[in-house]
Amino acid sequence: MILELKPHVDAFAFIARLERMGFQAVRQSESTLSIVRGMDKKVLPELFTSLPEVAAVLPLKEKFKLASKAAKQKTVIQIKGKTIGGEELFVIAGPCSIESKEQMELCARMAFENGAQSLRGGAFKPRTSPYEFQGMGEEGLKILHDAAAHYNLVTISEVMDASQIDLVAKYTDILQIGARNMHNFTLLKELERVKNPILLKRGFAATYQDLLLAAEYIISGGNPNVILCERGIRTFETHTRNTLDLNAVPALKELTHLPIVVDPSHGTGRRSMVLPMARAAVAAGADGIMVEMHPDPDKAHTDGAQTIGPVLFEKMMKELNLIYKCLSSIDPSN
Amino acid sequence: MILELKPHVDAFAFIARLERMGFQAVRQSESTLSIVRGMDKKVLPELFTSLPEVAAVLPLKEKFKLASKAAKQKTVIQIKGKTIGGEELFVIAGPCSIESKEQMELCARMAFENGAQSLRGGAFKPRTSPYEFQGMGEEGLKILHDAAAHYNLVTISEVMDASQIDLVAKYTDILQIGARNMHNFTLLKELERVKNPILLKRGFAATYQDLLLAAEYIISGGNPNVILCERGIRTFETHTRNTLDLNAVPALKELTHLPIVVDPSHGTGRRSMVLPMARAAVAAGADGIMVEMHPDPDKAHTDGAQTIGPVLFEKMMKELNLIYKCLSSIDPSN
Amino acid sequence: MILELKPHVDAFAFIARLERMGFQAVRQSESTLSIVRGMDKKVLPELFTSLPEVAAVLPLKEKFKLASKAAKQKTVIQIKGKTIGGEELFVIAGPCSIESKEQMELCARMAFENGAQSLRGGAFKPRTSPYEFQGMGEEGLKILHDAAAHYNLVTISEVMDASQIDLVAKYTDILQIGARNMHNFTLLKELERVKNPILLKRGFAATYQDLLLAAEYIISGGNPNVILCERGIRTFETHTRNTLDLNAVPALKELTHLPIVVDPSHGTGRRSMVLPMARAAVAAGADGIMVEMHPDPDKAHTDGAQTIGPVLFEKMMKELNLIYKCLSSIDPSN
Amino acid sequence: MILELKPHVDAFAFIARLERMGFQAVRQSESTLSIVRGMDKKVLPELFTSLPEVAAVLPLKEKFKLASKAAKQKTVIQIKGKTIGGEELFVIAGPCSIESKEQMELCARMAFENGAQSLRGGAFKPRTSPYEFQGMGEEGLKILHDAAAHYNLVTISEVMDASQIDLVAKYTDILQIGARNMHNFTLLKELERVKNPILLKRGFAATYQDLLLAAEYIISGGNPNVILCERGIRTFETHTRNTLDLNAVPALKELTHLPIVVDPSHGTGRRSMVLPMARAAVAAGADGIMVEMHPDPDKAHTDGAQTIGPVLFEKMMKELNLIYKCLSSIDPSN
Repeated sequence: MILELKPHVDAFAFIARLERMGFQAVRQSESTLSIVRGMDKKVLPELFTSLPEVAAVLPLKEKFKLASKAAKQKTVIQIKGKTIGGEELFVIAGPCSIESKEQMELCARMAFENGAQSLRGGAFKPRTSPYEFQGMGEEGLKILHDAAAHYNLVTISEVMDASQIDLVAKYTDILQIGARNMHNFTLLKELERVKNPILLKRGFAATYQDLLLAAEYIISGGNPNVILCERGIRTFETHTRNTLDLNAVPALKELTHLPIVVDPSHGTGRRSMVLPMARAAVAAGADGIMVEMHPDPDKAHTDGAQTIGPVLFEKMMKELNLIYKCLSSIDPSN
Repeated sequence: MILELKPHVDAFAFIARLERMGFQAVRQSESTLSIVRGMDKKVLPELFTSLPEVAAVLPLKEKFKLASKAAKQKTVIQIKGKTIGGEELFVIAGPCSIESKEQMELCARMAFENGAQSLRGGAFKPRTSPYEFQGMGEEGLKILHDAAAHYNLVTISEVMDASQIDLVAKYTDILQIGARNMHNFTLLKELERVKNPILLKRGFAATYQDLLLAAEYIISGGNPNVILCERGIRTFETHTRNTLDLNAVPALKELTHLPIVVDPSHGTGRRSMVLPMARAAVAAGADGIMVEMHPDPDKAHTDGAQTIGPVLFEKMMKELNLIYKCLSSIDPSN
Repeated sequence: MILELKPHVDAFAFIARLERMGFQAVRQSESTLSIVRGMDKKVLPELFTSLPEVAAVLPLKEKFKLASKAAKQKTVIQIKGKTIGGEELFVIAGPCSIESKEQMELCARMAFENGAQSLRGGAFKPRTSPYEFQGMGEEGLKILHDAAAHYNLVTISEVMDASQIDLVAKYTDILQIGARNMHNFTLLKELERVKNPILLKRGFAATYQDLLLAAEYIISGGNPNVILCERGIRTFETHTRNTLDLNAVPALKELTHLPIVVDPSHGTGRRSMVLPMARAAVAAGADGIMVEMHPDPDKAHTDGAQTIGPVLFEKMMKELNLIYKCLSSIDPSN
Repeated sequence: MILELKPHVDAFAFIARLERMGFQAVRQSESTLSIVRGMDKKVLPELFTSLPEVAAVLPLKEKFKLASKAAKQKTVIQIKGKTIGGEELFVIAGPCSIESKEQMELCARMAFENGAQSLRGGAFKPRTSPYEFQGMGEEGLKILHDAAAHYNLVTISEVMDASQIDLVAKYTDILQIGARNMHNFTLLKELERVKNPILLKRGFAATYQDLLLAAEYIISGGNPNVILCERGIRTFETHTRNTLDLNAVPALKELTHLPIVVDPSHGTGRRSMVLPMARAAVAAGADGIMVEMHPDPDKAHTDGAQTIGPVLFEKMMKELNLIYKCLSSIDPSN
């Protein structure tokens, strides 16, 4: 619900008053507030129209509020001198699983030398089977941190449970919420504890609206720096591991101000398709690319079939830079 | 991996030895063990064939082990004098959300008088939007417990996060893991803390194998009493909220020994379709039915459109009993 | 568009007048007509309100008209002394492909002796690959006809193209339109040439509305005897060949007056799942069942894996009769 | 089945011999033949190994043969001095429905002046409802032909039924088979009657293999000039009309030698998404783009919501040319 205030009303005093009534509100513009917590079916608009501060109660067109274009035009996240959602392409690269110090140092060098901004690596692995490799834990996080520090790379790693938030936040710049946890509302709410930007992956069968509502949980909790990530959905097609849905890029650009990153590795599950789909993602207007990269992909503990090695990674970075530059010369907003 | 033991090997001593090597193993039969923890890509079969106790190392046909038919023929869960997966149909009924003492007392009476075995009600609600009603919490659990106790009904309520496990287990007999959390591996692992049976709902886009691997997480953690629940998958069809997939019933019956319950309320999202789909589920061989039922569905806080009231509930119970009896007269295993 | 007529208007004279204006109309009730042909975006309601015979122009709620419940309560098709959509379950059985005289005679006897009403068999086979067996053609149709005649069974076979309509109609009672042709509008329109009832299978990715609009093509062409057939849709689940969607049964029962038949053979692709899903279909309220049955399924030219043999067929017929009788004792309309 | 011939065998004489045996074979290489017609389950490899001309019988890895990369490296189609699958991007533009001479003349001029190669327009419209505009028929085809002739544009229009093949082939260069007819095997086989290239659209729920098998029907009938077209698949996402699956581009490029065109208009159903998805398709490696374009989209008889007008079309052509040139400067084959 959006409250339009009467002239000369002190917005902050009114927000405090609403809080005493059991509601949380945030400013949307000079003269409007959005109620973000405390609403349920029993709360009627009449409750607010009767307040002396309120000029009008406006319905919301979208179920998501803070994540919507109506709330904000553009979110640009600044970190370690790099930007996400701004004037540069943000490339995240690294292995599916952190395996060793040597592996991560090689990855960090490959990322840096080819102009990538960020190093990824999983320390806690969500595995469909309980009998598969579950990750190196805190030791892995330290390795990730140290390897990236040498090149001033932005680090990113996955949090699988609220209990891991503080630990992962201690070592990495950006926390990743995996596709399997996009609907884990308890975890989403707990992210208010940290200030790190959150990379939120789209669930296997989540609509664009579902994804934006998941982002809304994080933003309404007080953490506005959410990066959306398209990583493929489940369809009837079995040739690819998932069906990378690039429509998400222009569709989300219309609906939200949040930056959008595309993961062609999980999205296709096939090494040979990573480059063309990464190029396509950039041409569609993505703010960043996240790829699985490994010094020796065929020896990777996990996800080797979709991981690219040094030669393809160098080729990809050249191609993406060319396409991104080409796009900048035209005005891609249409 | 399955280890076939040489004659006269002491299985328990060998399990202990494996544990010192970093593996967890469970007995599958008199002469075979299954390794359920500690495996990763670097562990080769040769490691085991070289042990003096081992006659042979057998590959696993299915990725799930303890949940498979190979491991066990049938799981029958006994609770409060009722059985799930046995010779009676197990009917779970109750509102989506616990709203008040009066509501739950009426529900408990409706359940009991029509012969249902179990009372459900949500105290913690997973809501797609952060601005929707989130449930009554512990107060709701107490209400559920007290209403059911009067009629000796089995209680069931959802756990959304590991931090809620002990609280929900204190008040309810069966813990429910919702569809959105089926892939929340951290939560699944933490369920080893309790002895309560677990009702595990299939994820929106989870295959039968995914569902069984999620069950495997729970069983391999030491909690063997898992009840699978089909509740609809996401497809292109928009007439129904989800597409209830009754194929899951005979398919899972072939793959696993675990009981299977069907939820036609979430599976269809339409009150008028609950009865025919509940009948169909029983005819397909389901061990139980879970329905949303409310004394006055149109006033329900949540999910009213798919909730049935007293008249339809009474009608459903009569129909299901007739069909279940009819099925028992034939031998439905084919 | 629905036209409400003024009192004392001669409906048939007015239909003739509309025809001269380029429209085709049919009577919906004593005082209303439905325009079924000739409409496009440029035809405005004003055109009709200005006519002296018209009291009012009513919008249509559904895009399908003649197939809707608003148009008619129930279609019961009578054929060879049997009924479809009436008070008996209509069972269609027979092989995927007609292979020989001996095979069809055995099938006819199995069908008759176990109480099935109809014999099916494909003479023209839609095969995904051009290198697979394409059917026996007219010779097969003759075999089907002769085998069924001996037991007075209703025959059914597929028409793949408008050019085959007259040939198939010559030998069989009911013409089948396969899932792959549900959107073949040219073929649907050409069916007006014959009076045979049409069994229309749901397309792989057709919504309920798509299916009803396809039926609308046939009915508006002048052939009102359409039987809808649910045969499974494409989803992400790969354990089954398709996902048989039994929700279609109660959903379509609410939307249309046409009879609904379920095909658990194509719907599951697995012999072991045919019986439970056939039982479930009947319990959900289906008017009929269509199964692939063969004297020796493992030797069938096509679809052997989903075809049942004599023992399972006898068992199925007994089970379905029990469940159908059980359902009749209650009132399944809710 | 692939037959490897003994040295010095006359391939053409052997093809004739096979024909007398009831098989159709085509040359795959100097020393191998592929049997493309006449095979069924009863034909065993032994039949061929016993022939004196045959050195060996090789199994086929893929179910499609003539469409596979194993059969040919690259198909380049030449028409009116333009190429499809060659060194230029092939852009097809025009309205969903041919409406008038004026409309088509404007479209032809827009196409020509912005550098597009081909003009499209539907004369026979496949409409989900029988009550919607069904197209102008032959009159429309003449209009399309004349408008294109003035600018030497390649014409393309849809054939909905075998009976329309000769008529459409008389007026247009390329025949389109729509998504709803991709599985219409009778129509596919009848295309052998003409020499025109065929643009074959992927069905709503067709896998890549299904699409290639449909192409195989056309090629094995003697018409090798097939152009594949990705136009979106059905998924659970409802924000877009379909889910344009750009993964099809690199996936098909690995599997087949046929050119691939992408249709972002039907693929998204939203005008604002046409440009970004067209750019992405080119970046993914598509050989061409097919868009719905109209002098005044909001007045289009059909599909206006996804049709672009003069301003966006000009912008699109500039962007696509830039990206195509950028891609050519790198080597996109990886």
